[in-house]
Amino acid sequence: MAAETETGRVEAFSDGVFAIAITLLILEIRVPPVGPPGSLGLGLARLWPSYLAFLVSFFTIGVMWLNHHRLFTVIQRSNDGLLGLNLLLLLGITFVPFPTAVVAEHIVHEGRIAALFYSGTFVVIAVVFNVLWRYVVRRSLLGPDVDPRMVHGISRQYAFGPLYYLIALAVAWVSPTASVVINLGLAVFFAIPARRFHVTHYPG
Amino acid sequence: MAAETETGRVEAFSDGVFAIAITLLILEIRVPPVGPPGSLGLGLARLWPSYLAFLVSFFTIGVMWLNHHRLFTVIQRSNDGLLGLNLLLLLGITFVPFPTAVVAEHIVHEGRIAALFYSGTFVVIAVVFNVLWRYVVRRSLLGPDVDPRMVHGISRQYAFGPLYYLIALAVAWVSPTASVVINLGLAVFFAIPARRFHVTHYPG
Amino acid sequence: MAAETETGRVEAFSDGVFAIAITLLILEIRVPPVGPPGSLGLGLARLWPSYLAFLVSFFTIGVMWLNHHRLFTVIQRSNDGLLGLNLLLLLGITFVPFPTAVVAEHIVHEGRIAALFYSGTFVVIAVVFNVLWRYVVRRSLLGPDVDPRMVHGISRQYAFGPLYYLIALAVAWVSPTASVVINLGLAVFFAIPARRFHVTHYPG
Amino acid sequence: MAAETETGRVEAFSDGVFAIAITLLILEIRVPPVGPPGSLGLGLARLWPSYLAFLVSFFTIGVMWLNHHRLFTVIQRSNDGLLGLNLLLLLGITFVPFPTAVVAEHIVHEGRIAALFYSGTFVVIAVVFNVLWRYVVRRSLLGPDVDPRMVHGISRQYAFGPLYYLIALAVAWVSPTASVVINLGLAVFFAIPARRFHVTHYPG
Repeated sequence: MAAETETGRVEAFSDGVFAIAITLLILEIRVPPVGPPGSLGLGLARLWPSYLAFLVSFFTIGVMWLNHHRLFTVIQRSNDGLLGLNLLLLLGITFVPFPTAVVAEHIVHEGRIAALFYSGTFVVIAVVFNVLWRYVVRRSLLGPDVDPRMVHGISRQYAFGPLYYLIALAVAWVSPTASVVINLGLAVFFAIPARRFHVTHYPG
Repeated sequence: MAAETETGRVEAFSDGVFAIAITLLILEIRVPPVGPPGSLGLGLARLWPSYLAFLVSFFTIGVMWLNHHRLFTVIQRSNDGLLGLNLLLLLGITFVPFPTAVVAEHIVHEGRIAALFYSGTFVVIAVVFNVLWRYVVRRSLLGPDVDPRMVHGISRQYAFGPLYYLIALAVAWVSPTASVVINLGLAVFFAIPARRFHVTHYPG
Repeated sequence: MAAETETGRVEAFSDGVFAIAITLLILEIRVPPVGPPGSLGLGLARLWPSYLAFLVSFFTIGVMWLNHHRLFTVIQRSNDGLLGLNLLLLLGITFVPFPTAVVAEHIVHEGRIAALFYSGTFVVIAVVFNVLWRYVVRRSLLGPDVDPRMVHGISRQYAFGPLYYLIALAVAWVSPTASVVINLGLAVFFAIPARRFHVTHYPG
Repeated sequence: MAAETETGRVEAFSDGVFAIAITLLILEIRVPPVGPPGSLGLGLARLWPSYLAFLVSFFTIGVMWLNHHRLFTVIQRSNDGLLGLNLLLLLGITFVPFPTAVVAEHIVHEGRIAALFYSGTFVVIAVVFNVLWRYVVRRSLLGPDVDPRMVHGISRQYAFGPLYYLIALAVAWVSPTASVVINLGLAVFFAIPARRFHVTHYPG
């Protein structure tokens, strides 16, 4: 009961951070300044990198919240290590608005660096997600009634995470915009519940 | 029980996003710079488009929260589709501060484009609200004790939503300010509980 | 039970708005720009109007949260009117960072207008608090076990609220800084629980 | 029960403030402006004071949340004094993004003043934490089943807090950057649960 309460407040605090980080993204889109008549339409259209970066970061943080939420439905107990790793994960999440703004501002002129910085952030977050999950499994912080196939499925899906984000990173060398869009695809990939990734005939 | 808990955290996360989006609106009102003595009063008065946009967006997001809240009192179960649609809805909500700032900055000089952009955002959100509700009804995610007349009432009210926001959009062509004010009227319309819209002799 | 849940989510949403508004205040304090060596100390000292406005607004919003919290411990049921009035109250709360920034920027050069605008905002919020409370009492939305002396105490304390804030408003004419400081005193006044204001021999 | 509920809402409000303050930190990192080709990499590298300040403040607020959370698991009852002291603590927390931005902007050119201001803020917060804890112990607001050794451990750990932060403050005179990094070390120190600090043979 005490442990459950502990998990409850960690979840509530984490939910707050996710909700704020996802909502702050909009502050990075700057209103076009007042110009000659007829310039607003063009001004709004020219903000496409801002809209794209906003969209990709929104769904990435949203799906990371979804995954965080799913993890904590199977995590039953909390300890200092988990609290520390969770704080590290939240550090990554709260950082996202900055590379998002870098992409929005620089993808047209210095896209490669901007996209590398953006995808690099997600590589790091994917690694932290992995480390946190492996810690939870190793320290047996899971509930007793958790389906081992689900555990296996999450482990498989997460193991590929950093690899996939590294591909997005590599693509940034060739096409920054394509790299950003690939991150959107990865958000969709991680939106799929991990149970789809379990080995069908796993001896559970 | 598990499903209810799931709905609980989705609601908490959504509440957070609504609360943050509605509070961030104020950041878009810029303090008039220090000028010659006696200029502050005029400077504050000239911000009327900012106050108007703040007011309309505040009540629109507030009433959308109210409706989201009402929907989730009748929604009992959650699934991946609902989570995805809810994320799409929150995308719309977090976007609102941007068109609000565009209206505040540009309604005097390029009001038509600004008001089109503003009302267009609400048309899209109204469509997403509709899609989410229809999904919930079709997939039977409602609780067993939900009054079918209330379901019918919500369906009716929401069906007209995009249409009404399209009218506000059309008015932007003639009078941008009137268009923005109509959105305030629509917020009041959606503040009225859906039960008032059920057909009185519905064979429930 | 349904009504209690309703109150629960209204409180959670309101708490979110209060917490965000109080935390956003810091964004209005601008870091002094890089200047010649030795200028930072003076630059930080010159921000005293920002610190003062931050302090007063922080405690005002904090104590308003406290009062909102106290009100909702005695309010048992919610209805559409209460939701609407609560939204109006939150509109006032979310607006506070703007007059705070106006005071911070303008109290030195055009203090009178700035302080009038600042205190005027609190007069309006105090009036809305009053209207909300009277609505709750008139519509009998209170719990059955609420001490009538407490109801009476809150009514008395709140009735004087707008009057006291009007005094702060009037003082702005003579001394803007004194007016701002009086608002700090009023926050302390409203921090005192209403039970201290009940008539001792009230025939309860 | 009423008292527990009271503590519950204070915790929820405080959690909100902590979560928002920690997430707002990222807004202080400014995107480098568009420059000549090849300048973005250098521009991002030159932001190291912003990254450092962000990191230190993130972990400091994070660990302060952890400690706040731990305190309120042993605090059972709330009263007006605790509410006031908690508000004072939150005032300190919401202020943190400002000295963080001062360090990020000024540590290269006027590091001493910037680091003094930064560490000074944490000295004040550590003192308030101390005062709040001593108030809780003196007024017996703790639950009946709280281990006295834990109380003793927290008292010991907290008593050294302001002293340690004063050391970080003193170091600012010699090396501003070292002073900022020491604050990171202090966050790690306070992340260690207080039970490690109890006297082993305490006559409990």
